[in-house]
Amino acid sequence: MEDGNLLFYFFIIFFSAKIMGEICVRLKMPAIIGELMAGVLLGNYVLGIIDHTNHVLMSIAEIGVIFLMFHVGLEIRVKDLFAVGRTAVLVGILGVMFPLVLGLGSMFFLGYEFVESLFVATAILATSVGISVKVLQDLGLIKHKVAYIVIGAAVLDDIFALIVLALVKGLARGEFHALEFFLLVIEALAFVGFLTMWGPRLAGRTRRWIEKLNIPEGPFVLSVILCLGLAYLADMIGLAAIIGAFMAGIVIDELAGVYDLENKVKYVNEFLLPFFFVMMGAHLDPGAFLKPNLLFLTLLVTAIAVLSKMVGSVLACWKENWKTRIQIGVCMVPRGEVGIIVGMVGLSLHTITKDMYTVVLGMSLLTT
Amino acid sequence: MEDGNLLFYFFIIFFSAKIMGEICVRLKMPAIIGELMAGVLLGNYVLGIIDHTNHVLMSIAEIGVIFLMFHVGLEIRVKDLFAVGRTAVLVGILGVMFPLVLGLGSMFFLGYEFVESLFVATAILATSVGISVKVLQDLGLIKHKVAYIVIGAAVLDDIFALIVLALVKGLARGEFHALEFFLLVIEALAFVGFLTMWGPRLAGRTRRWIEKLNIPEGPFVLSVILCLGLAYLADMIGLAAIIGAFMAGIVIDELAGVYDLENKVKYVNEFLLPFFFVMMGAHLDPGAFLKPNLLFLTLLVTAIAVLSKMVGSVLACWKENWKTRIQIGVCMVPRGEVGIIVGMVGLSLHTITKDMYTVVLGMSLLTT
Repeated sequence: MEDGNLLFYFFIIFFSAKIMGEICVRLKMPAIIGELMAGVLLGNYVLGIIDHTNHVLMSIAEIGVIFLMFHVGLEIRVKDLFAVGRTAVLVGILGVMFPLVLGLGSMFFLGYEFVESLFVATAILATSVGISVKVLQDLGLIKHKVAYIVIGAAVLDDIFALIVLALVKGLARGEFHALEFFLLVIEALAFVGFLTMWGPRLAGRTRRWIEKLNIPEGPFVLSVILCLGLAYLADMIGLAAIIGAFMAGIVIDELAGVYDLENKVKYVNEFLLPFFFVMMGAHLDPGAFLKPNLLFLTLLVTAIAVLSKMVGSVLACWKENWKTRIQIGVCMVPRGEVGIIVGMVGLSLHTITKDMYTVVLGMSLLTT
Repeated sequence: MEDGNLLFYFFIIFFSAKIMGEICVRLKMPAIIGELMAGVLLGNYVLGIIDHTNHVLMSIAEIGVIFLMFHVGLEIRVKDLFAVGRTAVLVGILGVMFPLVLGLGSMFFLGYEFVESLFVATAILATSVGISVKVLQDLGLIKHKVAYIVIGAAVLDDIFALIVLALVKGLARGEFHALEFFLLVIEALAFVGFLTMWGPRLAGRTRRWIEKLNIPEGPFVLSVILCLGLAYLADMIGLAAIIGAFMAGIVIDELAGVYDLENKVKYVNEFLLPFFFVMMGAHLDPGAFLKPNLLFLTLLVTAIAVLSKMVGSVLACWKENWKTRIQIGVCMVPRGEVGIIVGMVGLSLHTITKDMYTVVLGMSLLTT
């Protein structure tokens, strides 16, 4: 790629993502919808300015999503995960089971292959922590009990989705072997379990050693090394790289507060993330929605995604009053970035078709 | 590039750059020497882990150097540029003239072509602001008059070097035409002059508008857009992209303080910059220094670089006492990153040979 061209791509991607983001925020929609729309506009199917097969831009998008998951991991406190209590766990589990079973069932019923159905089901079972928190803020409920339950449940759902994604990814790569499936579950549980239980303690013990570092911004540098290292490790053992990055965020939980890492990683994220959303948007062919059956499928998947999640969530908190139950149900709906990530992984493994990616992306946009 | 491979490269580059950086800092050397050495080790000529022709990694290195120059621009206050007075300007000008004339003269005398000689002369006329400031801090002189003169002069030298680089780049691309040369000078002066004189004022007036932005981190986002935009513009009109990025830093000078932009850009920089230094190091063939004539040339160029800069600087501040004059002379020696940037531009334009790049890089390492 020519020097000037590269700069042009960087400028136009960053610029249009942010302009569209600003427009969406003013229309009271999340900024990421604007960034995705910018990608759709710039992509091959509309203006043709950005080539979604461009190697350099896709690589930067990949690093962008790794930093996104790292940042989400940094935002989550392990203690809160353990403290939210039974209701959150129940909302989380039922909020995953209903979409999974309903999604898988209806896709299978419609005649799709098992792995492809599973991908769609995985995409609809996630809940976006970031967007849920935003919705709660807008409703003025952020200090309310509802917020704690929703955030706890959403975090659990994201972890569930990531584990299921790891499994599905393993399945998609090879044939379906019971042993392989079993090994992947063990690997995923061991990786996630070990890092969740012991990671933060181990990280806490390195503090004295970190203080001795002489390079500028030592803690920030170490956290980035851990993020890239665990992402690579997770990818190597057959899990998704994003899970490794997410776990890196969980692991340095305690240190994050001391060294204000969340705020420092945020700026790397702010720079890289638009490339991810724009490149994801560029993969979407808006013309596909003109096909009636694809439009129908998108609306169907979206309806399943919304209803199954709400029913699961509302059932799970039967002890609460109706108002609280409805609030929790509504707040669990947005799928946001995790749904898009699932779609991207499926597309890159050629497990789901481009049409199906369009459906998943459409669903993510609609629920968000 | 495979997903896993990309992550591996990212991890190994970032990790080894920082490890080597830490070792260098402990040995009382600047961290960037460690990052370059990491690149030399990982590169094709030693371990062969990193391929310096890798497109994705070189693109990230390019964005890294753009953010470096943006950050340098943010660190410089336009007011200070005008306030340092005649001594700084004189030190700056003589500190540029001596290396330029001596460098060009001796290279030409040794039988090199005009453009190649000019590249070497350009590489030795720069002074590294960042490293000079570090040296001043180590000497406990940062609040002393010497510091103001050196920083002022170093800034001027960097701008001179960048303008000369832009001219040389133009020369290297086409044949030598007096008209073209003249147009480039006008363009460079107009671009740099307009942005220096009017840029900060224009940027200051946008404050009310910036406050109205709804997207998160609006000021940071706008500053990145300006950086990428001016870098692209500078590249398009025939100047180097890094000059555009540097000028973007100068332009948002006033706003930088208000929104703490320097600190925010720092983290993007911390992440991207190691890729630049490592990839630059990977281009160096340490075996080349085994050739006696190349080793001789490196030492000669380094000697010219050190002596000419010191003589120029010391002559310029004849009004000061001897101690101050020597201090100023010593502080002006480090070439650091700007020398490497000049070398890289020359190499990418095929104007200087790989051997000559090795010489320039060796000089940069030795003076730093």
